[in-house]
Amino acid sequence: MKSLEPMQQVIARLARLPGVGRRSAERMAYRIATDRKGLARDLAQALTELESTVVCCSACGNLTLKTEDPCTLCADARRDRSQLCVVEDPQSIQQLEAAGSYRGLYFCMMGKLSPMQGQDIPPAQVTALLDRIREGEVREVILAFDSDVESDATTSFLHQQLEQLGVQVTRLAFGIPAGSGIAYADPVTLARAMHGRQSYET
Amino acid sequence: MKSLEPMQQVIARLARLPGVGRRSAERMAYRIATDRKGLARDLAQALTELESTVVCCSACGNLTLKTEDPCTLCADARRDRSQLCVVEDPQSIQQLEAAGSYRGLYFCMMGKLSPMQGQDIPPAQVTALLDRIREGEVREVILAFDSDVESDATTSFLHQQLEQLGVQVTRLAFGIPAGSGIAYADPVTLARAMHGRQSYET
Repeated sequence: MKSLEPMQQVIARLARLPGVGRRSAERMAYRIATDRKGLARDLAQALTELESTVVCCSACGNLTLKTEDPCTLCADARRDRSQLCVVEDPQSIQQLEAAGSYRGLYFCMMGKLSPMQGQDIPPAQVTALLDRIREGEVREVILAFDSDVESDATTSFLHQQLEQLGVQVTRLAFGIPAGSGIAYADPVTLARAMHGRQSYET
Repeated sequence: MKSLEPMQQVIARLARLPGVGRRSAERMAYRIATDRKGLARDLAQALTELESTVVCCSACGNLTLKTEDPCTLCADARRDRSQLCVVEDPQSIQQLEAAGSYRGLYFCMMGKLSPMQGQDIPPAQVTALLDRIREGEVREVILAFDSDVESDATTSFLHQQLEQLGVQVTRLAFGIPAGSGIAYADPVTLARAMHGRQSYET
């Protein structure tokens, strides 16, 4: 017995979400189809609302309301405009802002170099980043990507592009995460923590 | 920085899906919001289509098109109408049909007894099941639920209700799954496999 066509359509779309395989998508679709509280309608409405009101900030790529472009971060006069933190996507901005230790601006690449998964950085974003640096206001570019092979390739690529412009390029420190210890760290994390060791400051 | 209101609405609804926690829902919502191929619109359309065309079969509760009620299984004259397989939800029907070893009809309870999670069997479904048995066509009711505490409670409850009607009640065998072995089986599975041991047939 094949699933009904409308179910198959929902399953195929749910399976495009990150971390959702075919089986999870099926399970979700069945829950949606049998929900007695109108989940299908509620979710459809929320998605339509999202699509019609939320855009990527024309300056940094962060999510923002159509009525607030540039976004509140880019428009905030108190932020340090000499620092530009380059991230993979808007969710990274959310996380870094939650940490609360950065007061500069952001720039989303909207992807990372990942030829194995058929993903790439949109070329227009690279051009936009380099144009932004050429404007001359930015003194330091902080590359803030994940700690995996694709992110390393992305960081390396962006570093090559940026160093030709004479701007200072830094990246996030890699090391032992807070609340964890040597016993729990994998060899790569330990090697990076050792490589990036810092002078002891009291 | 709080998420934008339209993002929060999508996140809250995605978090109602099975197996989706707050963090997964956020990750999905960000992917949806930044997708360049219209995922938000596509998914919203598919959900709206699902909601307007798919219903639960008025006879068995299986998912079916509004234009095909009762569903194709209930309407199939070749199926054995003396057997009724009682399941938790339509997805169980899909799974059992894929196994292809059952030729009777189905009945969905649309839930199981799960007071800890605030879930219950809709009382109307229990009444509908008992009414169906009273019609006299069904000789054997097969209780086909999962192997967990809530399912055991549900099976036990339904058995009590059904035995008063004089119908034969069976349930799925519990034991070692195909392709697995004793080394991988947990103690409860082993105890159940031992308890349900069968005479050796050649």
